[in-house]
Amino acid sequence: MREQVILGVDIGGTKSAVVLARTDGEILHRLSEPTRPEARGPEAVLERLIAMLREVMAAGGVMAEEVRGIGVSCGGPLDTKTGVVYAPPNLPGWDAVPVRQILQDALGLPVVVENDANATALAEWRFGAGQGARNVVFLTMGTGIGGGLILDGRLYRGTNDLAGEVGHQTILMNGPLCGCGKRGCLEALASGPAIARLARESMMYGRHKRVLALAGGKPQNITAAHVVAAAKEGDAYARQILEEAGTYMGLGIANLVQILNPERVIIGTIAVHAGDLILAPIRKACAEYAWERSRAVCQIVPAALGDRAQDLAAVALLLQEP
Amino acid sequence: MREQVILGVDIGGTKSAVVLARTDGEILHRLSEPTRPEARGPEAVLERLIAMLREVMAAGGVMAEEVRGIGVSCGGPLDTKTGVVYAPPNLPGWDAVPVRQILQDALGLPVVVENDANATALAEWRFGAGQGARNVVFLTMGTGIGGGLILDGRLYRGTNDLAGEVGHQTILMNGPLCGCGKRGCLEALASGPAIARLARESMMYGRHKRVLALAGGKPQNITAAHVVAAAKEGDAYARQILEEAGTYMGLGIANLVQILNPERVIIGTIAVHAGDLILAPIRKACAEYAWERSRAVCQIVPAALGDRAQDLAAVALLLQEP
Repeated sequence: MREQVILGVDIGGTKSAVVLARTDGEILHRLSEPTRPEARGPEAVLERLIAMLREVMAAGGVMAEEVRGIGVSCGGPLDTKTGVVYAPPNLPGWDAVPVRQILQDALGLPVVVENDANATALAEWRFGAGQGARNVVFLTMGTGIGGGLILDGRLYRGTNDLAGEVGHQTILMNGPLCGCGKRGCLEALASGPAIARLARESMMYGRHKRVLALAGGKPQNITAAHVVAAAKEGDAYARQILEEAGTYMGLGIANLVQILNPERVIIGTIAVHAGDLILAPIRKACAEYAWERSRAVCQIVPAALGDRAQDLAAVALLLQEP
Repeated sequence: MREQVILGVDIGGTKSAVVLARTDGEILHRLSEPTRPEARGPEAVLERLIAMLREVMAAGGVMAEEVRGIGVSCGGPLDTKTGVVYAPPNLPGWDAVPVRQILQDALGLPVVVENDANATALAEWRFGAGQGARNVVFLTMGTGIGGGLILDGRLYRGTNDLAGEVGHQTILMNGPLCGCGKRGCLEALASGPAIARLARESMMYGRHKRVLALAGGKPQNITAAHVVAAAKEGDAYARQILEEAGTYMGLGIANLVQILNPERVIIGTIAVHAGDLILAPIRKACAEYAWERSRAVCQIVPAALGDRAQDLAAVALLLQEP
């Protein structure tokens, strides 16, 4: 029994997980713990992950020669050629950490390091909403709007691993300031924080009561989750906010449809939670801003992997063609 | 001497050309004539092209078994899998013409049919400004703004041959009407006709005299070429128009840089003629609207093939990996 299993490592800002999986994606063993990047340095985090990798191997009774390799999904920026991770916003204190080298030296296995949006795109394509499609655009829609591109059946990384930054296309010249420093990015108009901002900004009109109540009466506590919850209850004000954000999202996706002519566009987190409340305005705007010939071959769907996405993201990295 | 040469066919709205070329791109023989699609049907046009193909083969003393195949560059929409051309705007009267089948039947050679923007992208990549780069975005900048994408060293066509329609990303919501029926497309803001429109629209301010003089005093005759000519003479008004169009173009390119992280962006026609008068504002806007990390690895350059582009476009189609 050689190369029957894969090790996966998901390094997140809040928690990190290690899995032992079969090549068909079935998770055999899993360990997770808080990452605490602010409390301990990258060396300590990686040391723990190495111990956890040894633990899941032992739990599965697996020898090194039976492992195809280790997939590591992590926030970018990072260099997939060298496996060095550069200062991801969610991992304070990490700066030029040679993740691949450290894991390879400790475990003697091949290691693939990839940014989490690309890795999740691969997982959705292999195991989730992208199955069977040759050209897939995956968009996260949470704290930020990231993306991963599967083109002609392969992950497309770009010249220095920065392809797929679809949330930082400019949608509104001189629009609201984005976290990245530019103005009017899609992320500044349709991400979770953007939806919360839209809800707070229009509070003056007094139609925000349900959203505000769900946030415990504190405007500063309003999140996209409160807006989605109120919209699900039928609150017209919350629905209108999702329509506005969905229109921007649909315009951004229409641009991607014009440029990449994908077969499937998969949207994560907020699209999964809000369903048609956000997908309907997204699809409507996409139909308005993209050509019918291109739009007709493209499905816009919510992500399908849910909680399994992060684990499978790491695993999917070892299932690519070389 | 087997498969030493390639036949190329460029079907344009104004003229069509047929070439016999070596695989290194050297054109050995060439014939061209007006296409006159309004005066004769597609069958008559193709019949003439077949005769011209036989002529250049005879001129080169070439037997069919020495020809690798026939590359056909043509306006889209078309289906590269079947080689059927569907109603290109520049070929009135063409509707579902089985170009590949007709040429294959007549000459018994493999035929590759591709839209002209993709074919020119391949030619610039193989022989021109894209040499040595792995990820190239080519943009036409003339009557329209089309595009072709070379990603990971291969032409990316998209799901139904519509990838690379970079001129129809939305730059300004509710912007000027585009020829495609949408509003605020890059093509409606930075193409040749858009530049001419900008020149005509701001005539009321009385600063347009040089441009108008070059157009023979007739506002309706103003073209982008007059604006470029006046700008080259130092006319401040014409330069300002090129700056405005260049800013939109740079914003559209910045979006492509964010999404595709290319190594090189190649711009045709107007960028070739106007040079830094339009490239400087394009580069400035791209630096403003794209991330420094992505922009730093990307050169924005004018197309390099000039008059040879169309011939080499058809030839380059036979130099792709299968």
